[in-house]
Amino acid sequence: MLKVGIIGVGTVGTSVANILIDNKNIITARAGKEIVPTIGVVSNLGKKRDVSIKLTTNADEILEDDSIDIVVELMGGIDKPYEIVKKALLKGKAVVTANKALLAYHRYELQELAGDIPFEFEAAVAGGIPIINALRDGLSANHIKSIQGIMNGTCNYMLTRMINDGVNYDEILKEAQELGYAEADPTFDVGGYDAAHKLLILGSIAYGIDVKPEEILIEGIENITKADIEFAKEFEYSIKLLGIAKKVGNEIELRVHPVLIPEDKMIAKVDGVMNGISVVGDKVGETMYYGAGAGGDATASAVVANIIDIARKGKGSPMLGFEKQPGEKITLMPKENIQTKYYLRLEVADKSGTLAKVATIFGNNSISIENMMQKPLKDSKANLLLTTHTCVEKDILKAIKELENSGVVLTKPNMIRIED
Amino acid sequence: MLKVGIIGVGTVGTSVANILIDNKNIITARAGKEIVPTIGVVSNLGKKRDVSIKLTTNADEILEDDSIDIVVELMGGIDKPYEIVKKALLKGKAVVTANKALLAYHRYELQELAGDIPFEFEAAVAGGIPIINALRDGLSANHIKSIQGIMNGTCNYMLTRMINDGVNYDEILKEAQELGYAEADPTFDVGGYDAAHKLLILGSIAYGIDVKPEEILIEGIENITKADIEFAKEFEYSIKLLGIAKKVGNEIELRVHPVLIPEDKMIAKVDGVMNGISVVGDKVGETMYYGAGAGGDATASAVVANIIDIARKGKGSPMLGFEKQPGEKITLMPKENIQTKYYLRLEVADKSGTLAKVATIFGNNSISIENMMQKPLKDSKANLLLTTHTCVEKDILKAIKELENSGVVLTKPNMIRIED
Repeated sequence: MLKVGIIGVGTVGTSVANILIDNKNIITARAGKEIVPTIGVVSNLGKKRDVSIKLTTNADEILEDDSIDIVVELMGGIDKPYEIVKKALLKGKAVVTANKALLAYHRYELQELAGDIPFEFEAAVAGGIPIINALRDGLSANHIKSIQGIMNGTCNYMLTRMINDGVNYDEILKEAQELGYAEADPTFDVGGYDAAHKLLILGSIAYGIDVKPEEILIEGIENITKADIEFAKEFEYSIKLLGIAKKVGNEIELRVHPVLIPEDKMIAKVDGVMNGISVVGDKVGETMYYGAGAGGDATASAVVANIIDIARKGKGSPMLGFEKQPGEKITLMPKENIQTKYYLRLEVADKSGTLAKVATIFGNNSISIENMMQKPLKDSKANLLLTTHTCVEKDILKAIKELENSGVVLTKPNMIRIED
Repeated sequence: MLKVGIIGVGTVGTSVANILIDNKNIITARAGKEIVPTIGVVSNLGKKRDVSIKLTTNADEILEDDSIDIVVELMGGIDKPYEIVKKALLKGKAVVTANKALLAYHRYELQELAGDIPFEFEAAVAGGIPIINALRDGLSANHIKSIQGIMNGTCNYMLTRMINDGVNYDEILKEAQELGYAEADPTFDVGGYDAAHKLLILGSIAYGIDVKPEEILIEGIENITKADIEFAKEFEYSIKLLGIAKKVGNEIELRVHPVLIPEDKMIAKVDGVMNGISVVGDKVGETMYYGAGAGGDATASAVVANIIDIARKGKGSPMLGFEKQPGEKITLMPKENIQTKYYLRLEVADKSGTLAKVATIFGNNSISIENMMQKPLKDSKANLLLTTHTCVEKDILKAIKELENSGVVLTKPNMIRIED
């Protein structure tokens, strides 16, 4: 028998306890032993919760209890869970966490501390989708060439509604907040930070690269307008917030930003609050994993899968530096060296000479245009919408700055990267 | 170090040997030890093959060699591989096979014989997609409510072309044969038998049910016409050949047939030769897995993942009666008791009274109509296209028989089940 202590008994913690009880028969059969949730730690004992396990406010009742085998950390935050997970591992307890922020900052350190003690976190990326399982086991024969993930349901819901129903950003943000999909302060979701935490976890598994959120390119969906969406539809693109990890030589690209992506790509078809992650392996080609990225039961499904796995295997599985080969030196690709195609929306005066100025600036920066269209606006203004051939991020940023300085654009240009 | 012997060095066997060599560094790191392909068994030594391992025509050079740890069976067929796998397991060798026909008939027996010796077959279902891994590990906290799989790339390619490009069945079959997607005798693919073998493997993992292909409902895509496709498009359905496993009480539905499926469902968006499998768990909700279902490297990716897994774990994982709880009695639902919605195409004489006769027959069999449309054909004939509300398979079959006997239909009615 394995005893489980749950630190943080909110929506997910409640589901974990209840799944272990509701599905006890199959879980026992699959794990090869009984798994019993025995105690939960909460901050407020007065709050009504739908669980039958004993509750306490004192985490040490789990950490200092030698009979507890597995600690499930579902607190949220970084510093306090970090101390608790460390203490649990030092006590020799297996740890399962769904805490992506904790992992985005401390996963290597904690994994190293864990050594052979299981330290698992399937639920931290894309909720119920077994994507870490796929990367570590199912695709283990492959060099991972790239990962593209829709890993934030809030953003995907908002973008889907903007594309399918023509709703604009402010309206849909309000709706998402009313539906409970977005927080009162939505920055963490719409700004791309949540997706970035998840991307760093996948990047570490695929490539063994250890970087912090502050080091990578993160852009949110706040600047996407109806004009961008109309252009995308006209050129058969969808717009998605993607977390992208890609190996180019010995450098790893890690970036989160909205993309224009051909609408016939499988990941472009992932709509609404759902998550989807496309992984390209050198042998298997593209595979994609789809499901609910959030929600108590879906997330708890992944937590319990980790618990069952721990019961089966009894020790940790190799994790760190998964892709890194002995002696191989991999580094994060500097943001300004990223190469891709770009979409730009420029608000310009609708008069002769404008196009020539724009074209000159692009030419001077080694940027060549693939598609262009001009849409009239009110008051003799126009939107100039264009896509480039593949070019270098620093060149496009320089061109945008020059466009702004030259006065040819009337407002700050909007740029969206293209993935195809 | 683990030594691997490969029995059957065709496209997949060649890829297995080459992946083990090409990706040796990461595989060694992930497996925790070196894995070496040492010998392959072929029937014709004279044929040129792109492998560097030793080749022989004598399987006993693997089976009788105590230094070989893992036997990879990629022969095809049933009886001969059955004998070879049995012998390998009796010799205590781990076995990895991609042979779905062998498994459709003998998996329980072989798994039981294997006991704690690893007997793995990820590649037998949906090629490179790690679906067995997902069912056994990633979704282990869930009762599996249903599985819907596009598991035959040939059929999916043909249906996609028929739907997107209006090509008719005979033309597209010829094209698929020319492209090498379909065999000269295409029955095994287009008749649904290949998908059925894969479905039985998934059914055994999800539900622990042991039945043979002969016992389940299998229909192919041979009777789908342009008229059906046009109707489907008009009502926003796609047409897919699905393998379906579903638990209803203590009965398991297992069936392979074309379906009309709402085109906004994720699995309906899996196009071309690709495979996709949707799994609904009681906790996680719907998850979907997508990728290449065939091809040497993709299939070999799954074979090698199993080999790496064996190297890591060193013994078999619980497999049989996965979902079946102690004492639970599950049985195959008899075909005639299946309940779903149905689409029917009836070729009728375009004259008064026809509709009344049709309606009477449906009414007498407790079948109620949901949608209906009539499309004129040449020579005063018409296609009557309709969908029913949920009804019982035996009732619809009886109604079809009565329609034929009554003379109201001019040709054999075409029936396609609806999944939504």
